[in-house]
Amino acid sequence: WYGEFFPDIPKIKYEGLNSTNPLSFRYYNAEEVVLGKKMKEWLKFSVAFWHTFKADGSDPFGSATKAWPWDKEKDPLQASFKAMHANFEFMSKLGVDRWCFHDRDIAPEGATLAETNKNLDLVAEVALELQKGTSIKPLWGTAQLFKHPRYMHGAATSPNATVFAYAAAQVKKAMEVTQLLGGENYVFWGGREGYQSLVNTDLELEMDNLGRFMKMANDFKHSIGFKGTLLLEPKPQEPTKHQYDWDAATSVAFLHKYGLLEDFKLNIECNHATLAGHSCEHELEVARINGVLGNIDANTGDAQTGWDTDQFLTDPRMATLVMAVVVKNNGLGSGGINFDAKIRRESISTEDLFYGHISGMDALARGLRNAAALKEAGQLDGLIADRYASWKAKGGLGQKIINGKVGFAELEKYALSNPDPGSSMASAKQELAEIYLDMATK
Amino acid sequence: WYGEFFPDIPKIKYEGLNSTNPLSFRYYNAEEVVLGKKMKEWLKFSVAFWHTFKADGSDPFGSATKAWPWDKEKDPLQASFKAMHANFEFMSKLGVDRWCFHDRDIAPEGATLAETNKNLDLVAEVALELQKGTSIKPLWGTAQLFKHPRYMHGAATSPNATVFAYAAAQVKKAMEVTQLLGGENYVFWGGREGYQSLVNTDLELEMDNLGRFMKMANDFKHSIGFKGTLLLEPKPQEPTKHQYDWDAATSVAFLHKYGLLEDFKLNIECNHATLAGHSCEHELEVARINGVLGNIDANTGDAQTGWDTDQFLTDPRMATLVMAVVVKNNGLGSGGINFDAKIRRESISTEDLFYGHISGMDALARGLRNAAALKEAGQLDGLIADRYASWKAKGGLGQKIINGKVGFAELEKYALSNPDPGSSMASAKQELAEIYLDMATK
Amino acid sequence: WYGEFFPDIPKIKYEGLNSTNPLSFRYYNAEEVVLGKKMKEWLKFSVAFWHTFKADGSDPFGSATKAWPWDKEKDPLQASFKAMHANFEFMSKLGVDRWCFHDRDIAPEGATLAETNKNLDLVAEVALELQKGTSIKPLWGTAQLFKHPRYMHGAATSPNATVFAYAAAQVKKAMEVTQLLGGENYVFWGGREGYQSLVNTDLELEMDNLGRFMKMANDFKHSIGFKGTLLLEPKPQEPTKHQYDWDAATSVAFLHKYGLLEDFKLNIECNHATLAGHSCEHELEVARINGVLGNIDANTGDAQTGWDTDQFLTDPRMATLVMAVVVKNNGLGSGGINFDAKIRRESISTEDLFYGHISGMDALARGLRNAAALKEAGQLDGLIADRYASWKAKGGLGQKIINGKVGFAELEKYALSNPDPGSSMASAKQELAEIYLDMATK
Amino acid sequence: WYGEFFPDIPKIKYEGLNSTNPLSFRYYNAEEVVLGKKMKEWLKFSVAFWHTFKADGSDPFGSATKAWPWDKEKDPLQASFKAMHANFEFMSKLGVDRWCFHDRDIAPEGATLAETNKNLDLVAEVALELQKGTSIKPLWGTAQLFKHPRYMHGAATSPNATVFAYAAAQVKKAMEVTQLLGGENYVFWGGREGYQSLVNTDLELEMDNLGRFMKMANDFKHSIGFKGTLLLEPKPQEPTKHQYDWDAATSVAFLHKYGLLEDFKLNIECNHATLAGHSCEHELEVARINGVLGNIDANTGDAQTGWDTDQFLTDPRMATLVMAVVVKNNGLGSGGINFDAKIRRESISTEDLFYGHISGMDALARGLRNAAALKEAGQLDGLIADRYASWKAKGGLGQKIINGKVGFAELEKYALSNPDPGSSMASAKQELAEIYLDMATK
Repeated sequence: WYGEFFPDIPKIKYEGLNSTNPLSFRYYNAEEVVLGKKMKEWLKFSVAFWHTFKADGSDPFGSATKAWPWDKEKDPLQASFKAMHANFEFMSKLGVDRWCFHDRDIAPEGATLAETNKNLDLVAEVALELQKGTSIKPLWGTAQLFKHPRYMHGAATSPNATVFAYAAAQVKKAMEVTQLLGGENYVFWGGREGYQSLVNTDLELEMDNLGRFMKMANDFKHSIGFKGTLLLEPKPQEPTKHQYDWDAATSVAFLHKYGLLEDFKLNIECNHATLAGHSCEHELEVARINGVLGNIDANTGDAQTGWDTDQFLTDPRMATLVMAVVVKNNGLGSGGINFDAKIRRESISTEDLFYGHISGMDALARGLRNAAALKEAGQLDGLIADRYASWKAKGGLGQKIINGKVGFAELEKYALSNPDPGSSMASAKQELAEIYLDMATK
Repeated sequence: WYGEFFPDIPKIKYEGLNSTNPLSFRYYNAEEVVLGKKMKEWLKFSVAFWHTFKADGSDPFGSATKAWPWDKEKDPLQASFKAMHANFEFMSKLGVDRWCFHDRDIAPEGATLAETNKNLDLVAEVALELQKGTSIKPLWGTAQLFKHPRYMHGAATSPNATVFAYAAAQVKKAMEVTQLLGGENYVFWGGREGYQSLVNTDLELEMDNLGRFMKMANDFKHSIGFKGTLLLEPKPQEPTKHQYDWDAATSVAFLHKYGLLEDFKLNIECNHATLAGHSCEHELEVARINGVLGNIDANTGDAQTGWDTDQFLTDPRMATLVMAVVVKNNGLGSGGINFDAKIRRESISTEDLFYGHISGMDALARGLRNAAALKEAGQLDGLIADRYASWKAKGGLGQKIINGKVGFAELEKYALSNPDPGSSMASAKQELAEIYLDMATK
Repeated sequence: WYGEFFPDIPKIKYEGLNSTNPLSFRYYNAEEVVLGKKMKEWLKFSVAFWHTFKADGSDPFGSATKAWPWDKEKDPLQASFKAMHANFEFMSKLGVDRWCFHDRDIAPEGATLAETNKNLDLVAEVALELQKGTSIKPLWGTAQLFKHPRYMHGAATSPNATVFAYAAAQVKKAMEVTQLLGGENYVFWGGREGYQSLVNTDLELEMDNLGRFMKMANDFKHSIGFKGTLLLEPKPQEPTKHQYDWDAATSVAFLHKYGLLEDFKLNIECNHATLAGHSCEHELEVARINGVLGNIDANTGDAQTGWDTDQFLTDPRMATLVMAVVVKNNGLGSGGINFDAKIRRESISTEDLFYGHISGMDALARGLRNAAALKEAGQLDGLIADRYASWKAKGGLGQKIINGKVGFAELEKYALSNPDPGSSMASAKQELAEIYLDMATK
Repeated sequence: WYGEFFPDIPKIKYEGLNSTNPLSFRYYNAEEVVLGKKMKEWLKFSVAFWHTFKADGSDPFGSATKAWPWDKEKDPLQASFKAMHANFEFMSKLGVDRWCFHDRDIAPEGATLAETNKNLDLVAEVALELQKGTSIKPLWGTAQLFKHPRYMHGAATSPNATVFAYAAAQVKKAMEVTQLLGGENYVFWGGREGYQSLVNTDLELEMDNLGRFMKMANDFKHSIGFKGTLLLEPKPQEPTKHQYDWDAATSVAFLHKYGLLEDFKLNIECNHATLAGHSCEHELEVARINGVLGNIDANTGDAQTGWDTDQFLTDPRMATLVMAVVVKNNGLGSGGINFDAKIRRESISTEDLFYGHISGMDALARGLRNAAALKEAGQLDGLIADRYASWKAKGGLGQKIINGKVGFAELEKYALSNPDPGSSMASAKQELAEIYLDMATK
């Protein structure tokens, strides 16, 4: 036993809206039923191991600011065991039963790949042991293919074929460990799969190699009988100038091109969405209508900064719009809601870790309640149904178009013999729609 | 005859680098051979009718500033004839033999669609007459589906099926006119095909309808034997908050999804590229490696503003990077280089129209010379070949990966039994590559 | 009498949170007392004449979409009278008693300046008549110095001295009319006071001339005994590439340089704040701590677009942060909250004008309630007081620094003889602060 | 002697435009006279110690990639000595005789402030010794007040008064060392002087404290007879969400407010300019017309990324525009051109350090030649003189305005009795101006 890491923090409880206790939930009530499912089913929350236990507060202009109790160990393996214990204590107190990890965050790199794999096995055993008798398991695992210098030019997209091989070996192992731990998904975020400059880059070869890599990953998944969902995580840039999985649409194009659209889904991160110039709900919708909405990395960026701040999503309006898409998708399948979010560099107390997660859980629970209220009120759905009525009317022009019964020639005839639609336009009623949205945003 | 519109402007001639005459070309020498082709073949320049003859200088905060001589006519049809004559005088003096048009820019809207079509026919006859005996023809035509209020909610993506029909009729006619005039391509820019807010939008239906519309357009093209290329023009936003053809990758995803990738290419506009968060050369490269680089709308935006300024591309470095992709693509096929660029609102003399086009033509001619010098020097190509050598070596690991001979299991074995590539990383040499680029940027 | 323009719209009433009537207030209860003042005193709302009655839905890619009943008049003066009547009917039904105007929006330009001035007098008389017996008056007036071509190169910053004179004459008249109508402030928004390119601009002369202009305006104000506050309205860009009143700090620098800081305050617009890269509350705070927070143009932009969308501010969190600064400033003095916001181009029913304003009024009323709750709870103020305690302790180092008792030499001695503060850093507690904020965001 | 660090690199020579040797200058010819001064006088280049010798390639997603020979020393003081020797060898081979430093980059932090100061003294002695007999000296020194955790909440703007004292002690020492080494300027870049969130920040107190700090720094400078110029370096954000020296105008407002405008100048960094939404030449011009253009940190950002990439400025057009302002300012006084630029993370050879600096030096030398050509050609100056002629005409309206002879009343009379200037507007001729610029951009 490694001792208690958060001795002053009790189990966080739902106390309702009137609570002034910051160590309580005011919205998140795990067992409460909303739209026919428990909140904890809609909101399969996950703690991100790296941000919560390994982020040390360093940034491009500053060194580490945090001195977490689980980091005081000198031996790297012991430190890893300690951090894993802290993770389970944290989840238990928070009432969350999913976690996400990179291979290299949970276990230290050794002198050789074989040794590194061994380290990973040892830590995985600890995690497995800790999971026993609980409902805890990984929401997803992944391989960290961006931090080590060997990946400086890319992993699957490295100009060096040996690096591709090394990355393949690492993903293979990470997927095995994810399977071992009962992980429900496996994620690919290509932090170095992109370029710094087109001047010295063979874009075509690099993207083709990325396609080859993903195909191998999918083949491997099937070869070991791993049942989890494979997820691409789009991000437009940072650390590279331009990443290959820029956004949801780019990722869909990629999956199409390399014949992988049936085998992968997307992990949408809100901060990545806004860095790509989209709202988070846009990215979620693009994934949803393409049948690839797999998971949400719930965080938010600063609306005025051009880099990934990975803050907890606490804005009620944004949470409502996010959860409205989840409701429309009837949940996230094998996916969940991972807090890919970190407390600020200047937040250096362990209790800040709780404040951050509580604020994120409560915001999304609030968003879920609002999304449910919106749906139950039905005003907004009614407004949309009215707006698109001409496409639904039986035997009408809209249905003929949809059913492929008409072409340009027929449509020209129709246009020539009917009144110009410009003479009877309807309002888009966006302001009214926003009032309906607002009525649900409690 | 409508008289001369630019009486003080002589035919613009190539005078070479030492010229101080702003009404001369210093780089563009139409008949000069570069990399085996004449400059005028590499640079199939086109005048954009709308910006050059119809832009009146109004903006969201200001009314019209230009009082062009061809606009002084009260009768709209006569004004259209006059503007068309001005167009041909302009091209002739500039030495350009392609032009691009929207249907509604060259001919006025009538009281009914039938009347509007008639107007268009009359103007097309004038243009056809003016083309006679010249090498002039349209680079492309298109239908303006964004200005009239009937399209306020979208054209192919309107919530009103009748608007879809009206748009279809308009595209049908515009394609016929383009064919009549010998146009080499037909362009789709969906100025209103997007949304202002997701709150009142059925994203899925709208995108499916856009797919249906493009399929009909393609069917119609084949039905009339039009040989031109169909081109989608990506733009991320403006006038809508979010447009469906956001960027090249999004457009490729769209074409994939609706089975149109064999039938369409892209028209890449530099200012749209940067508004989407990409460099222009990125968008060109994405189009190129997907086999859909069809045309360039050559302009540039202001690097610090968030809207489409449509300025002439005059920057030597940018022009070099753009032309380097064109050289790599061995030209643009049926496409060319359209100056989708306008002189500033405050530039109100007719000679400013010449200054703008001369600056754009010279910049791209300079870019072509630089791109040729870069290729002929070979230093940069050599640097890239070295960088990716491990993928080309016969019998090497790279070739095995490319040829699908290995999977994760084999690659893990390889990685475990070979030295960590991290111990022998090569420099990416970006600074050296930039020196090579600079050596060619004269 | 010009008839009723909104016959189907009743007087909007406060119905409270449970109302599902979109034509009611759910938060704004004019007479309710919050923090010792009535809501209508905290929230001196104003209707922006131009957006509400003159915006026709045209944009850079589209023509007018709205056909308002007051616009059906052919005679421009009669149309102006009609629109003014519509304005008063609108305010009366909405329960708002302030309005803002540009000279050229309320009255048409004539053939000469004298005639234009005459037109303005006639419309002002109508407004004056309509104000009688009501509590209605202008929150502020201003001169429109950006739409007419004469201002294409700037007004006070025009390269043409005659334009400067013309602008001076126009502001003189607009200020007189504002005074006549009992306007409480006079605003300067320099839509063309900026540049499109530095290449052809004498930045120094232009900015000096702007300083001269503002000095003359201030002199003139005093000469006629106008008691209203003069307000600069910062905006970073659009329509120009770069405007001289970029943001609050830039405007403060300008006022300092030209000796006008005692005589002017700022009108902060939220959408302008975000276009400049700041949050709205940042700009409000910068104005507040420099003693120049004079008025708020309450609107919001789209978080992902790079131009001024002038939407109604409906986000609860943003409204809370805005109103928290207003509370800290103990109100806005002679200023108020002007809805410099327009309904979307696609919102073409007159009732949409009500929906927009109701959504904005309710959002800010909600924000005020939240700001009051935040202040009354006191948790956040307590957190900040703790954070800065070392600056307040009597006789402590902080007070010595503040009182100018120590310099670098004394501080070096202190630092050398005291423990490194790095060994006992406190958490910034941002996440906890956000929970406190959230507790108040109902 | 610590050995040679760049044994394969010869002294870099000017070889002229036809050179294909990337280790030569093609534009920079130190002794050549341009506009009456030697190139090396116009271009007082400086090597940035931190980027060149201490940047290890780590970024927020990756660990160090560079293994520089001077970093192989375990003892931190010995490593510092070695790096300083490398610095002098580098400058000597490059032909640059200025360098810039942070205190904590050149010497290691000790266990106490006293020990740290001692370390700094020892390294300063080494530098002083190496400077002997050369023309080398610091362009400027500065204190690093952003990396250590003690500064996480700010240095002069820390909520903790003891941190303020510690920062004062550090600046005092750094200024002394700068003086000792003959440094010509002293720079303040407030990397942590800003906020992460307004929610927990006392903006007013923090900014006042920053004013107090700068006042003390200025007093101290005079007390020790340091003759160098004090320079503020604006940056909008990063690492904080919002920094207090946002841009040039904000810094001017700050200097005004705290009575320091006579005592400070600005150090303009191009990448910071663009992050603030301005072109680099805008920031230079704002500094110039306010009399505070003190130094240039010559670098560039990526036009599409939202963080500080600190790349070498290699773009010919940008270099021309930058140097045109320097020429207009007749040089930079005690300031120079510091390469606050780093080679890419993936550039890991020592020769890459040379490529980077050569590309930057050549670009600015090219820019200087172009700026001189532009001035000597005179076309652009002529265009501007014509444009503003109405302000210069003796006895004209422009002069009356400038000389304060007229107010609104007189100007109204003038406007009423003269033709509307709108009837005779002149073109702004931006496209022609760009052609003139282009003619000079060789």
